[in-house]
Amino acid sequence: MNDIAKTLNNIRIKSPLVHNITNYVVMNSTANALLAIGASPVMAHATEETEDIVTISSSLVINMGTLSEKWVDSMLLAAKKAKEIHTPFVFDPVGVGASKYRTETALKIIATATPNVIRGNASEIMVLAQQAISTKGVDSTMLAEDAVSGAIEFSKKLNTTVVVSGEVDYIITGDKISTISNGSALMSKVTGMGCSATSIIGACIAIESDIHLACTTAMAIMGIAGDMAAELSKGPGSFQVNFLDSLHLLTGGIIKDKIKLNV
Amino acid sequence: MNDIAKTLNNIRIKSPLVHNITNYVVMNSTANALLAIGASPVMAHATEETEDIVTISSSLVINMGTLSEKWVDSMLLAAKKAKEIHTPFVFDPVGVGASKYRTETALKIIATATPNVIRGNASEIMVLAQQAISTKGVDSTMLAEDAVSGAIEFSKKLNTTVVVSGEVDYIITGDKISTISNGSALMSKVTGMGCSATSIIGACIAIESDIHLACTTAMAIMGIAGDMAAELSKGPGSFQVNFLDSLHLLTGGIIKDKIKLNV
Amino acid sequence: MNDIAKTLNNIRIKSPLVHNITNYVVMNSTANALLAIGASPVMAHATEETEDIVTISSSLVINMGTLSEKWVDSMLLAAKKAKEIHTPFVFDPVGVGASKYRTETALKIIATATPNVIRGNASEIMVLAQQAISTKGVDSTMLAEDAVSGAIEFSKKLNTTVVVSGEVDYIITGDKISTISNGSALMSKVTGMGCSATSIIGACIAIESDIHLACTTAMAIMGIAGDMAAELSKGPGSFQVNFLDSLHLLTGGIIKDKIKLNV
Repeated sequence: MNDIAKTLNNIRIKSPLVHNITNYVVMNSTANALLAIGASPVMAHATEETEDIVTISSSLVINMGTLSEKWVDSMLLAAKKAKEIHTPFVFDPVGVGASKYRTETALKIIATATPNVIRGNASEIMVLAQQAISTKGVDSTMLAEDAVSGAIEFSKKLNTTVVVSGEVDYIITGDKISTISNGSALMSKVTGMGCSATSIIGACIAIESDIHLACTTAMAIMGIAGDMAAELSKGPGSFQVNFLDSLHLLTGGIIKDKIKLNV
Repeated sequence: MNDIAKTLNNIRIKSPLVHNITNYVVMNSTANALLAIGASPVMAHATEETEDIVTISSSLVINMGTLSEKWVDSMLLAAKKAKEIHTPFVFDPVGVGASKYRTETALKIIATATPNVIRGNASEIMVLAQQAISTKGVDSTMLAEDAVSGAIEFSKKLNTTVVVSGEVDYIITGDKISTISNGSALMSKVTGMGCSATSIIGACIAIESDIHLACTTAMAIMGIAGDMAAELSKGPGSFQVNFLDSLHLLTGGIIKDKIKLNV
Repeated sequence: MNDIAKTLNNIRIKSPLVHNITNYVVMNSTANALLAIGASPVMAHATEETEDIVTISSSLVINMGTLSEKWVDSMLLAAKKAKEIHTPFVFDPVGVGASKYRTETALKIIATATPNVIRGNASEIMVLAQQAISTKGVDSTMLAEDAVSGAIEFSKKLNTTVVVSGEVDYIITGDKISTISNGSALMSKVTGMGCSATSIIGACIAIESDIHLACTTAMAIMGIAGDMAAELSKGPGSFQVNFLDSLHLLTGGIIKDKIKLNV
């Protein structure tokens, strides 16, 4: 708990620059989530500047929600550059399995440079773990629990941290598994909450070099802010507002009180 | 009324996947509107995956708000595929008439595959109905009433349903006309409310094969949620929040109480 | 004060069409800010229609937040057309200095057609004023005060109005300097507030031909709505909602009461 509070505090003090190559749907909401916890978002995707922006940033977020050719070029360039200069990066394979193009792109990104973290819902992680299941768009058609064994193998094979989010979030680094059970059902009624989780992972790995701890921190921040927001909300509209306020108002004390962490 | 409540209920039970090829301005808000009524939005535009995504979706929404070449390619591909596999689709000719490019693109889409529904404001529908009037950006410069006779002809010529939205919404299928008089003036102070209407039509035609009824349902949902939200709001900021909450909280009972439907 | 209230009033009466070629992150929020003060936003970027849209619009906003090749083509085309037909335009060099590409693009736009207004934070304005400092993404790493002398020279050299925004906003037209000291620290925790300022400048120059006054009006509107919103808000989520409501509710009387203007 203390480590988690410390990482949040350091984000606020250092305000790390987090480079996002992400999808059109969530750019605004993830930028706002990053600002609300104290990080500095930058959204930039032109291949002409990808490497410059990676270079000045403390971490990189690649999210393939609304793919197209030029954006994939930029993602590959950014991933390569991040690896080269040891900038930590997180990959969100949104909707992998929903089309051949999505699956191929995700595999290409992973093959180009191993992400420090891969975060997805259970279906996405399973597809990437090369078990043939079909995803229903960007929603999860299976429970996080069912994806855990595949995710462990996947984590070991790639030597990376895998985060499977759902009602319970699993943070998996080889055989080390932590779970966070915070969060509200309203989160699935707002677009881009998974993408926000990925971006907040981006903020945490910019600050905390223990990647497993950074991811646990990010999922705790998301889940607890979700709990706080849900208590105040009548529906998904007010939830979004209260969620950003809660990210801003979150303290170490609140985390200690509310966290449902299992290590 | 019962049919309308039943369609809303079925959206919540079946959570249909609605494929949106839409504009940058409203992607977030229309995804949230779809989630709030219980549907599953997917936004994807790359020609590499258009046909795959159409194939797994229950309906298609094409909205030409922020056009460019590659997106038009994708729209045409998606429309053709939807027609081929009998996936219902709705077309929103945003700003048609504001530029030659917009008018040509709208006509090209319609010529490629007749949409099951075309929804626009009065100016947009009139332009598409080939009567020469000029639109002022994406706002309507004329009353819905004035566009009705053109829309009836247009509906007959294309054998499709035409929805003209405004203070009164007209749902027109040949000589069959229904009107919905719900909704608030604040809706014109929020960007993308028309686009949300189109996406909610997308959700309704995914569930209800009677296209006229599906469109009437969608416009009732929009208008009544607008009424509910306006009662609670001080301005366009709080309206947006309350609108999403209202979509989430809407019930058959509320629809029965509040609907201003004329058949 | 009376001039400022009058310009706001005229925006509401005339509802000028403001053409925005802007970034993906803020399109929704700037469209909503423009609607909330009574203007009509249009977002369109395809080179096929750029000139048509500039022609029907009362002002042009060019914002280079999420650059790429085709968008730069469109920005250059729009700037040229605006100059040719005397449509006032404002340029927002988001993140200039963060990459070579950004700096080159900003200089290219200015060389193509001198904007009537350039608005940025202190770092951005300094970079453009060709003093070598590095920006940290899109945030300002220096105080507005430090950029003033550079901005004065820059304003004289280009014969244009330069707006440096920060805790205190400087509106600089040669040796004429006005400052607005309204606004809240919460504004830096919401993405795109600077971009909204630029778009509201767009609305004001569409109505008021005295560019210095128009910019002062825009910064007063932003700052005072920011003050009003901050009083009601717990964090950046509720701030965004209250900010749009405040833009909608702002009156000449409120401006007179709250404005912190120095001429």
